[in-house]
Amino acid sequence: MTTETAQTLHPGTQTVTVDTGRERYDIVIGHGLLALPQCWAGLPRAAQAVVVSNATIAPLWAARLVQALQPHYCQVTVIELPDGEAHKDWPALNAIFDHLLTHGADRKTVLFALGGGVVGDITGFAAGCYMRGVPFVQVPTTLLAQVDSSVGGKTAINHALGKNMIGLFYQPQCVVCDLDTLQTLPQREFIAGLAEVIKYGPIADEGFLGWIEHHLDDLLAREPGALAHAIRRSCEIKAQVVGQDEKEGGLRAILNFGHTFGHAIESGLGYGQWLHGEAVGCGMRMATDLSVRLGLLPPEALQRMHQLLVRAGLPVRAPDLGADCYLQWMGRDKKAEAGEVRFVVLQAMGRAAVQGAPDEVVRQVLQAAVRVDALA
Amino acid sequence: MTTETAQTLHPGTQTVTVDTGRERYDIVIGHGLLALPQCWAGLPRAAQAVVVSNATIAPLWAARLVQALQPHYCQVTVIELPDGEAHKDWPALNAIFDHLLTHGADRKTVLFALGGGVVGDITGFAAGCYMRGVPFVQVPTTLLAQVDSSVGGKTAINHALGKNMIGLFYQPQCVVCDLDTLQTLPQREFIAGLAEVIKYGPIADEGFLGWIEHHLDDLLAREPGALAHAIRRSCEIKAQVVGQDEKEGGLRAILNFGHTFGHAIESGLGYGQWLHGEAVGCGMRMATDLSVRLGLLPPEALQRMHQLLVRAGLPVRAPDLGADCYLQWMGRDKKAEAGEVRFVVLQAMGRAAVQGAPDEVVRQVLQAAVRVDALA
Repeated sequence: MTTETAQTLHPGTQTVTVDTGRERYDIVIGHGLLALPQCWAGLPRAAQAVVVSNATIAPLWAARLVQALQPHYCQVTVIELPDGEAHKDWPALNAIFDHLLTHGADRKTVLFALGGGVVGDITGFAAGCYMRGVPFVQVPTTLLAQVDSSVGGKTAINHALGKNMIGLFYQPQCVVCDLDTLQTLPQREFIAGLAEVIKYGPIADEGFLGWIEHHLDDLLAREPGALAHAIRRSCEIKAQVVGQDEKEGGLRAILNFGHTFGHAIESGLGYGQWLHGEAVGCGMRMATDLSVRLGLLPPEALQRMHQLLVRAGLPVRAPDLGADCYLQWMGRDKKAEAGEVRFVVLQAMGRAAVQGAPDEVVRQVLQAAVRVDALA
Repeated sequence: MTTETAQTLHPGTQTVTVDTGRERYDIVIGHGLLALPQCWAGLPRAAQAVVVSNATIAPLWAARLVQALQPHYCQVTVIELPDGEAHKDWPALNAIFDHLLTHGADRKTVLFALGGGVVGDITGFAAGCYMRGVPFVQVPTTLLAQVDSSVGGKTAINHALGKNMIGLFYQPQCVVCDLDTLQTLPQREFIAGLAEVIKYGPIADEGFLGWIEHHLDDLLAREPGALAHAIRRSCEIKAQVVGQDEKEGGLRAILNFGHTFGHAIESGLGYGQWLHGEAVGCGMRMATDLSVRLGLLPPEALQRMHQLLVRAGLPVRAPDLGADCYLQWMGRDKKAEAGEVRFVVLQAMGRAAVQGAPDEVVRQVLQAAVRVDALA
């Protein structure tokens, strides 16, 4: 899709371009996009399209998307996966392959990931492997997916021994963020998505952090103008980072701020107990605390993060899994190398770096995190 | 590994370079390579290496490879998969992931595929997906793997509904063909591998076809000089084709000469009844027959292919699965587009092309193939 096409779609539609050097694609952000046939006109030609969604999202949005795709493909089918992080696994992935093969999908078939991060990650992985790669499009319907997981080409499924352990870097043809879909999102999921929006402030843009603090009530009320700005700015930062480091050789790792602790929470509790964004929210507080304890940040920075997370309704007290359990899960993090856990830390508000940390300091962070008082 | 390193390994060691434009690596061909520590000196540094092999090959060759790797990695472990095409599936792939995760393998861990085409395909796929990609090395121990499957970065597992349906293009760091490993290969497997050597003649080099016809007895006796030449020339042709078309946009499909029919034989009979090379041998005869019936080749060309395949000990009569069964399996071939089956045909001996064919001509080929007399 060209920028010109996107801007003729609806007034106010915005475009952010991701350019990894090897691939280039647009993130289109606007209202009512999903149901517009012209939104899908610029994609690769194929005999068929397959919409991958889940049991929650499909009843709300799949029919509109299918109708908008029908002018472009002879056959459009929908596969519904079970909803939830617990199903980001091989059986769900294989259900997509079964659907594709029984429907005679060929090497040109285009997949559409209609849903949140789980649907996007698993559909992207399926597209990357089916017949060694078919095109796919991200149509994220959650805030978390729109600002984070749908952009940048990370795809994966979980393994019993670790989250996102099996996957690919595989870029979509484009990302279409229809803001209307956010209006049907349950509040808990919406707030979880805000954690990934907030993330972009501390790691890359203190000004954006200030904007979020100032407009948090508008965001929580899902005010369209505030949402559009927050999503565009988040996508811009993500696109800039991914453009410099597609495969997480270095810089890209800063996008995992809060994720090393967060993944340990998710894994330790069992996938699906906490939402990913909730775990990341709590993990960002822990990573900020770590940065303070390492002498990188003044204590006021922790206070600032803490207050914003609490105002947003995100959890700040970590579940008491025991420090050894945390350390064990963090040792399995993909950023770990030869057993050493690597953390994303803040060198200042708006500037992140990746480094190791002494075990005893990490233990202090863990011990403090399970005793955090939200009202402190 | 640099060419200079390779050539200091053993007298007579030869190198063929694959250059896809995005990646560049060497195929090293020689004697006693596997057990030489200096053969593995140029690979990416890592804390650990994992050798993936199978229950047949590991007892013969794994200890030598492990010993040669130990100077370069703190930890070298071996995982043995069950042997055979029937196990080129998700459970075997997941067994590799289990091994990697329980051994704390990180994003730098190097995998070594020690075995035939099944081990190479599945290990390459595992390497491409584990933590979104770790380096791997092909150490093919069968003739088929040395001349074909280990070169070019095609990796895959089978799906119940089709062969190699789930996979990646993922290039190895290098390919090390130790000619000594061919001496322990059962004759049936060796002959199956010859089918892929023979293939390079009709599709790309009539002179090489003549050389094979002239040296077939030496090859069947596994005479080292003849083997070394056949493998080097096969790898050169494959490297040239893959270098021009890594992802099978066009030219690369010619490497599948005989494979559309061959895959239908393998799938129709159930994986593992015929060896892959046997099915390809029979399939090449069928594809040559198709080329003759389409008026592209004179009937003498079919006679020539037939005689060579019979002399090599490859099957020329197709199993009688029924034409509908063949057509159904061929319709699922990855080269099929929007239901139309695409065949690799010969426009002359030494020149291949990809095209469709009328159903009735394909049916004539199928009907004739099940009545072929090897002595004709």
